[in-house]
Amino acid sequence: MLDKKIQPDEKLAKIFELEMLRVNELIRERMSSENAPRIPEVTAHLIGAGGKRFRPMLTLAAARMFDYVGDKHLKLAATVEFIHTATLLHDDVVDESLKRRGRPTANLLWDNKSSVLVGDYLFSRSFQLMVEVGSLAILDILASASATIAEGEVLQLTASRNIKTDEATYLKVIRGKTAALFSAATQVGGKVAGAREEDCEALYEYGDALGVAFQIIDDLLDVEGSLENTGKNRGDDFRERKVTLPFIKAIKKSTKSELAFWEETIEKGNQIDGDWEKALLLMEKYDSIGATRKEAELWIQKAKLALENLPESDIRVLLTDLADYILIRSK
Amino acid sequence: MLDKKIQPDEKLAKIFELEMLRVNELIRERMSSENAPRIPEVTAHLIGAGGKRFRPMLTLAAARMFDYVGDKHLKLAATVEFIHTATLLHDDVVDESLKRRGRPTANLLWDNKSSVLVGDYLFSRSFQLMVEVGSLAILDILASASATIAEGEVLQLTASRNIKTDEATYLKVIRGKTAALFSAATQVGGKVAGAREEDCEALYEYGDALGVAFQIIDDLLDVEGSLENTGKNRGDDFRERKVTLPFIKAIKKSTKSELAFWEETIEKGNQIDGDWEKALLLMEKYDSIGATRKEAELWIQKAKLALENLPESDIRVLLTDLADYILIRSK
Repeated sequence: MLDKKIQPDEKLAKIFELEMLRVNELIRERMSSENAPRIPEVTAHLIGAGGKRFRPMLTLAAARMFDYVGDKHLKLAATVEFIHTATLLHDDVVDESLKRRGRPTANLLWDNKSSVLVGDYLFSRSFQLMVEVGSLAILDILASASATIAEGEVLQLTASRNIKTDEATYLKVIRGKTAALFSAATQVGGKVAGAREEDCEALYEYGDALGVAFQIIDDLLDVEGSLENTGKNRGDDFRERKVTLPFIKAIKKSTKSELAFWEETIEKGNQIDGDWEKALLLMEKYDSIGATRKEAELWIQKAKLALENLPESDIRVLLTDLADYILIRSK
Repeated sequence: MLDKKIQPDEKLAKIFELEMLRVNELIRERMSSENAPRIPEVTAHLIGAGGKRFRPMLTLAAARMFDYVGDKHLKLAATVEFIHTATLLHDDVVDESLKRRGRPTANLLWDNKSSVLVGDYLFSRSFQLMVEVGSLAILDILASASATIAEGEVLQLTASRNIKTDEATYLKVIRGKTAALFSAATQVGGKVAGAREEDCEALYEYGDALGVAFQIIDDLLDVEGSLENTGKNRGDDFRERKVTLPFIKAIKKSTKSELAFWEETIEKGNQIDGDWEKALLLMEKYDSIGATRKEAELWIQKAKLALENLPESDIRVLLTDLADYILIRSK
């Protein structure tokens, strides 16, 4: 239930408003290119479109939790947003998406080529920013996260349109495509602030569980719709034949004839009017939507448990509330 | 004139045979992915296709020049080859290429999606390898080179099919797409071996000039053909409407009616039988092919001059011969 009080994401945005202004300044400065004006055109379009800036905010919050004084965390927050933006550009090429955050995608406005190459540029720039921070431990975390992201995306490519995709594979995919950057974002925030090894691990656990929950809920919202406008239409994943958790849980329990339905619609892609409604009925029959939400709840619990290992602070309370809030989105 | 004696690239391959075996082993090991089997499929296809492995060899040669003992240079050589392979994968998507090194491209065998994402994976893996080497100075060089590569590629996107492209823009493009990795390859080889700052700069100068010459000659070969089989067909760039140096030099001197021809064929893309022959005649009329070769010669001279600042050694002699050999390819 959403009430009128200030939501935790808005609170975070308020607390880190000044720092986020500096992060945005850094982003604008570093995404420019004297030599290739196409670059700032494309990135300005994407970055101008907003988005909640969850990931850089997580870096700032983790650094604040350990009373970091300095400006390296700003570079890391910008790094995290650059990596995120680069993956969005490449995702939209891969998914042949037409819209992102309610606006036409870069691949539609310019072309796939620009999206591929500007994504590469942003990724390289993020890498330069990290090097400036001067910590090999942090570089290691972000390099591994980048590899996990790419691996998850490739795995998704072979897993999609495949109704044999199991929950373990689904988890690997979303760990890559979403959780890896969340966990790297929180972990490097702690690291740059000189947090102890076990605190950095707790931050990693929090980011990882939060990211997994975030993606499960995103996939859930695609199936059941949401109170707010997410810019997505109900049933997009079904139409794009993406096998997400609510589908996997229903397919697992299918009768022979139901299996034939999933084969026809997801694997072969022969969808007719009424198929989406039929898919929904099957998911309700096996309560796969409810089971998916329960799974998200478990990950949120895991995220909150990880926080309990960290020193008490206002930020910790806020990160706990943020975890709950992510879950509320799905109700 | 190619004679029967052993060419410098073959000599290099012979000298670094054992080290290159270890580099190849490292490449095979790091390009694998337990989670996403599509990854080694795609990369094995590309890496199996061979190529001269110029870039990693340059890193090994630069390290040997300063008597490096250790194995970090192997990781850097693998890094350089990974970055190169990642850019090839993305280039083939951007160019919509069907063949690379005489074999079908990955985007044709699998799909553009796989090429984009596997390229991202290789880039991330290269980044991990660099971090393992543990030198921020080296990370800085390779991060900057990556940004320059992406920038050059984006610039090429907006410069191609544009007959107003001038020589300065052409130089920026090829510095990015080719020379940046050559110069990073030589420079990090020196750096890892503990060479002095001025020696690293000389190595950079050599790699940069060699890379610029290499690309100019590649573009020249596309126009005038070659003695060996380069896997390219004469006139490919004209058909793909890429404005390379021999074209730029001819277009600059065009009469009004000649300019109309370039507009029609390159900008509008209306090419008919005989147009390629006409383009060749125009390039001969203004001796733009000869002028382009002269420019390549100047860059080769520049490369050899840079070597003179480095300590005398057998490797230095070989790198000098290599520069001459690159030029001979175009005769």
